[in-house]
Amino acid sequence: MLVVMRVGATPKEIRSTVAAIRKLGLTPNVIPGSLRVAIGITGNKGAIGREQLELLPGVAELVPVTKPYKLVSRETKPEDTVVAVGAGGPSTSLGALSERSESKGVRFGGERFTVIAGPCAVESRKSALAVARAVKAAGALAFRGGAYKPRTSPYSFQGLGKKGLEILREVREETGLPVVTEAVDPQSLEQVARHADMIQIGARNMQNYSLLRLAGQSRRPVLLKRGFSATFEEFLMAAEYVLAEGNYQVVLCERGVRSFADYTRATLDISLVPAVRKISHLPVIADPSHAAGRRDMVPALSRSALAAGAHGLLVEVHEDPDRALSDGGQSLAPAAFAELMDSLRRIAAALEVTC
Amino acid sequence: MLVVMRVGATPKEIRSTVAAIRKLGLTPNVIPGSLRVAIGITGNKGAIGREQLELLPGVAELVPVTKPYKLVSRETKPEDTVVAVGAGGPSTSLGALSERSESKGVRFGGERFTVIAGPCAVESRKSALAVARAVKAAGALAFRGGAYKPRTSPYSFQGLGKKGLEILREVREETGLPVVTEAVDPQSLEQVARHADMIQIGARNMQNYSLLRLAGQSRRPVLLKRGFSATFEEFLMAAEYVLAEGNYQVVLCERGVRSFADYTRATLDISLVPAVRKISHLPVIADPSHAAGRRDMVPALSRSALAAGAHGLLVEVHEDPDRALSDGGQSLAPAAFAELMDSLRRIAAALEVTC
Amino acid sequence: MLVVMRVGATPKEIRSTVAAIRKLGLTPNVIPGSLRVAIGITGNKGAIGREQLELLPGVAELVPVTKPYKLVSRETKPEDTVVAVGAGGPSTSLGALSERSESKGVRFGGERFTVIAGPCAVESRKSALAVARAVKAAGALAFRGGAYKPRTSPYSFQGLGKKGLEILREVREETGLPVVTEAVDPQSLEQVARHADMIQIGARNMQNYSLLRLAGQSRRPVLLKRGFSATFEEFLMAAEYVLAEGNYQVVLCERGVRSFADYTRATLDISLVPAVRKISHLPVIADPSHAAGRRDMVPALSRSALAAGAHGLLVEVHEDPDRALSDGGQSLAPAAFAELMDSLRRIAAALEVTC
Amino acid sequence: MLVVMRVGATPKEIRSTVAAIRKLGLTPNVIPGSLRVAIGITGNKGAIGREQLELLPGVAELVPVTKPYKLVSRETKPEDTVVAVGAGGPSTSLGALSERSESKGVRFGGERFTVIAGPCAVESRKSALAVARAVKAAGALAFRGGAYKPRTSPYSFQGLGKKGLEILREVREETGLPVVTEAVDPQSLEQVARHADMIQIGARNMQNYSLLRLAGQSRRPVLLKRGFSATFEEFLMAAEYVLAEGNYQVVLCERGVRSFADYTRATLDISLVPAVRKISHLPVIADPSHAAGRRDMVPALSRSALAAGAHGLLVEVHEDPDRALSDGGQSLAPAAFAELMDSLRRIAAALEVTC
Repeated sequence: MLVVMRVGATPKEIRSTVAAIRKLGLTPNVIPGSLRVAIGITGNKGAIGREQLELLPGVAELVPVTKPYKLVSRETKPEDTVVAVGAGGPSTSLGALSERSESKGVRFGGERFTVIAGPCAVESRKSALAVARAVKAAGALAFRGGAYKPRTSPYSFQGLGKKGLEILREVREETGLPVVTEAVDPQSLEQVARHADMIQIGARNMQNYSLLRLAGQSRRPVLLKRGFSATFEEFLMAAEYVLAEGNYQVVLCERGVRSFADYTRATLDISLVPAVRKISHLPVIADPSHAAGRRDMVPALSRSALAAGAHGLLVEVHEDPDRALSDGGQSLAPAAFAELMDSLRRIAAALEVTC
Repeated sequence: MLVVMRVGATPKEIRSTVAAIRKLGLTPNVIPGSLRVAIGITGNKGAIGREQLELLPGVAELVPVTKPYKLVSRETKPEDTVVAVGAGGPSTSLGALSERSESKGVRFGGERFTVIAGPCAVESRKSALAVARAVKAAGALAFRGGAYKPRTSPYSFQGLGKKGLEILREVREETGLPVVTEAVDPQSLEQVARHADMIQIGARNMQNYSLLRLAGQSRRPVLLKRGFSATFEEFLMAAEYVLAEGNYQVVLCERGVRSFADYTRATLDISLVPAVRKISHLPVIADPSHAAGRRDMVPALSRSALAAGAHGLLVEVHEDPDRALSDGGQSLAPAAFAELMDSLRRIAAALEVTC
Repeated sequence: MLVVMRVGATPKEIRSTVAAIRKLGLTPNVIPGSLRVAIGITGNKGAIGREQLELLPGVAELVPVTKPYKLVSRETKPEDTVVAVGAGGPSTSLGALSERSESKGVRFGGERFTVIAGPCAVESRKSALAVARAVKAAGALAFRGGAYKPRTSPYSFQGLGKKGLEILREVREETGLPVVTEAVDPQSLEQVARHADMIQIGARNMQNYSLLRLAGQSRRPVLLKRGFSATFEEFLMAAEYVLAEGNYQVVLCERGVRSFADYTRATLDISLVPAVRKISHLPVIADPSHAAGRRDMVPALSRSALAAGAHGLLVEVHEDPDRALSDGGQSLAPAAFAELMDSLRRIAAALEVTC
Repeated sequence: MLVVMRVGATPKEIRSTVAAIRKLGLTPNVIPGSLRVAIGITGNKGAIGREQLELLPGVAELVPVTKPYKLVSRETKPEDTVVAVGAGGPSTSLGALSERSESKGVRFGGERFTVIAGPCAVESRKSALAVARAVKAAGALAFRGGAYKPRTSPYSFQGLGKKGLEILREVREETGLPVVTEAVDPQSLEQVARHADMIQIGARNMQNYSLLRLAGQSRRPVLLKRGFSATFEEFLMAAEYVLAEGNYQVVLCERGVRSFADYTRATLDISLVPAVRKISHLPVIADPSHAAGRRDMVPALSRSALAAGAHGLLVEVHEDPDRALSDGGQSLAPAAFAELMDSLRRIAAALEVTC
């Protein structure tokens, strides 16, 4: 159930409605919009008595939400959410929801196409900085690089950890690019929330609900990658865990799903992009590097994601892909990345999207 | 094994080489290129003695073909194949292979994007003509419409059969659009080859090898749709069946694969497009209508296919989608199709592709 | 819609009901049961007027059939169908439906477990006979062997054709085992129907509806293999095509589906077995050889199919698996097959199933 | 690399070899067998110099391990691992590996079939005890019940938490059945390790490597469920994370994978069972309840798992399935469970397996 407040409802009216919902034993979730405020109600087992709410001062209407996902749904919030990353200190949940209210930081959502680029793993200060400068020059707006790497084998390189986070901070200071990096457990999440601009939750942890809750409590923007075989509903429900903690700054990321197809490492499910744009107000980007698992397909998949309506990309770029400590085969060299960005700008212009 | 003839090899030298291959108990497949002729050798169980062939007059070099697909491979023919449809009478196998030699008909392949549009099934002369005029006006270059419909249920509408083919012929005469329609068995294939400009082999028949052989013998261009769960190799091998009969005019079509994802009817495997362009010289198009199974996603998937490098589309358009006898839910209305074509032209221009 | 006749309805009453259904523009399908006759009605677009039928003499009740599959459904025929193979000449459709009426031939269905075994392809008279004697001695009740082989590559061994069918006939004459072999197109189907006891329709042709119709017209028992990615409903609908032509003798065969799993060639979908037993009256067997694609897993999968309730197996056995012309890697040697049969008999006894 | 010690190698020789491995900068993993001790070497980037190790006193031979999974592989430990659950206090890693050394507790592995049964979630003391008594009477050897439930929706019942663990302890005290329950994060894992006999890691957390490491450090037996789309190698590598911490007591559990099939909630991949038995020494069981998602299929899938070689089952049983707080549709009532156990005992006898 969604309580839509009148345009111009006063803070007091909103507080009274919130209190009334609490009194019914339910959980109110205040969702500010550019025109008016809505309050999502969660925690109900069955039907909610309408009469106690619809006559309260300032309440415009009650809207039943028919899907299991509530806060992520366009039924709850019709307008696109714009997530601002690197806006200088943790954003409040209010700020993330309205395009008007964000004047700083790199933005995801609406009619823009925002590219995050960088190496799979942070390997050294020197190489991270070199890649960061190269991708910034080519047009990337944010930097990625793993400090904590979830690896299939316990014997593989697991990332530099805190040392990696420090390098990321230096990258931000030197280049101005906000940095995105993955958290894999409570300890790393705390570190990432402190040092990075955006917390990445990887595909393997998409249903690690404890981690999602911590990400929701962190107040940092979250980049949530789809699980290897997550359905659309499961993916949105994972985001719902973050929003349910009051953090509305979630960017969804399609990174390919498991299928029988064997010429790419995963099968980029391009249809997810228009599906998310229709059903949810959250931004959605694509990771062509992990989907393809081979760099020769990254440009074609990147262009297809833009044309399908994605709000951005997460692309792996490495100074010297053949010597990367992890996933080098799918990383673009800086020159190939610059060429890709050129073609993306041309397509974005044709689509009237800011790139 | 591929025998590459010298530039300027004489017809006599080519004939002698063909004869020498036959003498070894093998099958020569002459593959003309714009610069020189190659001869693919099939039918060998094991290694072929090189010495009997490489010293023949006119032979430039012998190239081993390492994949199970031979004639469809870029190893065999590096340059793009351009398939001409509706060029006025059955094409010879030679004509289809070289861009220069085709001055007539609608072309698939190379740096152009060719859209086929029309209803799922031909329902009446009146409605077929109305749709054909509308899609032509919007920029479609060929018309589709099923006369023989493979339906999951024996009790569903199975198409108008010969009557449908006659309507298609009228559509071509009145609009000038070449017509594409599906063949489902030897009888319908014979009829389709006689009356239509391009024979469609549907996903359910992708491994109906007898039908593929008959399509290969027909000398009509073939539109081959990928099976619901065909691997890349199986798809190329199905095309190989057509080429092995001497018909090189095959256009491949990605139409979505089976997966666990449930918000589209099939999962459009967009990665197939760059994979085909890399490994094969054949053109590849996409069918966003059957992939999505719902019209609201058709525009996004169409644009993504173009941006991924597809050579065209097969799109369902129906005058009144909600009253269609089959698959109405996935058909665009004419106005929506015209709007889609506009956006495709803008993207094509950005990609320097002719649309 | 299903018209259930009273127990003891006279032939005249049945004929009158059939005529009344025809008069309504619908298609009656007479389905004899051991106790009473039912008449399935197909061909209706919308609802059928009940009043014209339910008052006819001999009609007990009208049962709406809610699924798209009608004749294959237990709603239509609650008791198990028993299919008799090699009963001496083509069976009538009536005979196949009632356990009591079949005294000859090898039976599939009910509480028995019937094993078909033999090589992937018939390679020579000598080897076919040797395998047939071995599998008979071990307890197989029918012989399999391909004469027409659908192969992924046009350059692979395609089977001995008519020569293979002659060898199969000799095998039957010498061993008494009925023979099962695949038909791939109208020509081979005609030959197979004439010379073999059961027509196999392979996975690649499961939705080759023209071939299914011909199999339905042939009056031979049909072994229908599930397509690589056929849903449960599509599989039953493929069988419905055969039954809709009046041939009720269909045995379904699970042979593994496409998935991401890579340690077997296909993923044996063991759940299909109880699903079929619940929803359909048709017998269902499993093909562990094609599912596994490797012989070391065939015994475990065979035992699991029996325990899951399958009515039998289709197992590949080759005299000398490592020298087989096709699929040798998945064929059991005769000694391994005999050992497998021993274990199956023990499990069957525990399940009170005749093996 | 695996260092195999001689039969009768002294503790001192083993210690010296361990020290020599450490000196090379590598990690030794001591793996006791019933006849002799082996030492797995992990942590190497490239090849290991053989000469420094093979001449040490007590070393019999050096065996290269060719797979990415090392400690879980039969190459490393050829004999079946038997995991004892509820043996009275945390087992040492040594004890778990040898059948001889375990005289107490419920055992998984070797030629026995061990059934764990109980409700999806612990709902109350009364209902948990009632189910526990019923499943014990029917032949179950261990009790399952979730205290911490990973739920797709943040608004669903998430389990009773510590209160649930207390109920489980009471169940153990009253019935003598060891209890198995899921841990979902560091906090719950610590609690589960303290109060339960076996730690379950669920499908959603199969690649939550931090959690796997903690489970490996806990010294409690671990029940590791396969992820929804985990490949065979990924599944074994997840177990490897636990073993790499020194905890060798891991039971693998197949619980169905994602596929296009829609008549069960997941597709039970029965082939995993013989695959694990061939490649790994760890026990493998099946969860037919979560695979099917519907109780009518649970008996058939349970029997198929036993016949395929599984070492046991994890089955959901609920006093009153239709009133369960979670997953009631897939839970068996006690009477149906008792009937299932009867049939399993008959099949087990036929297979000469202790049930």
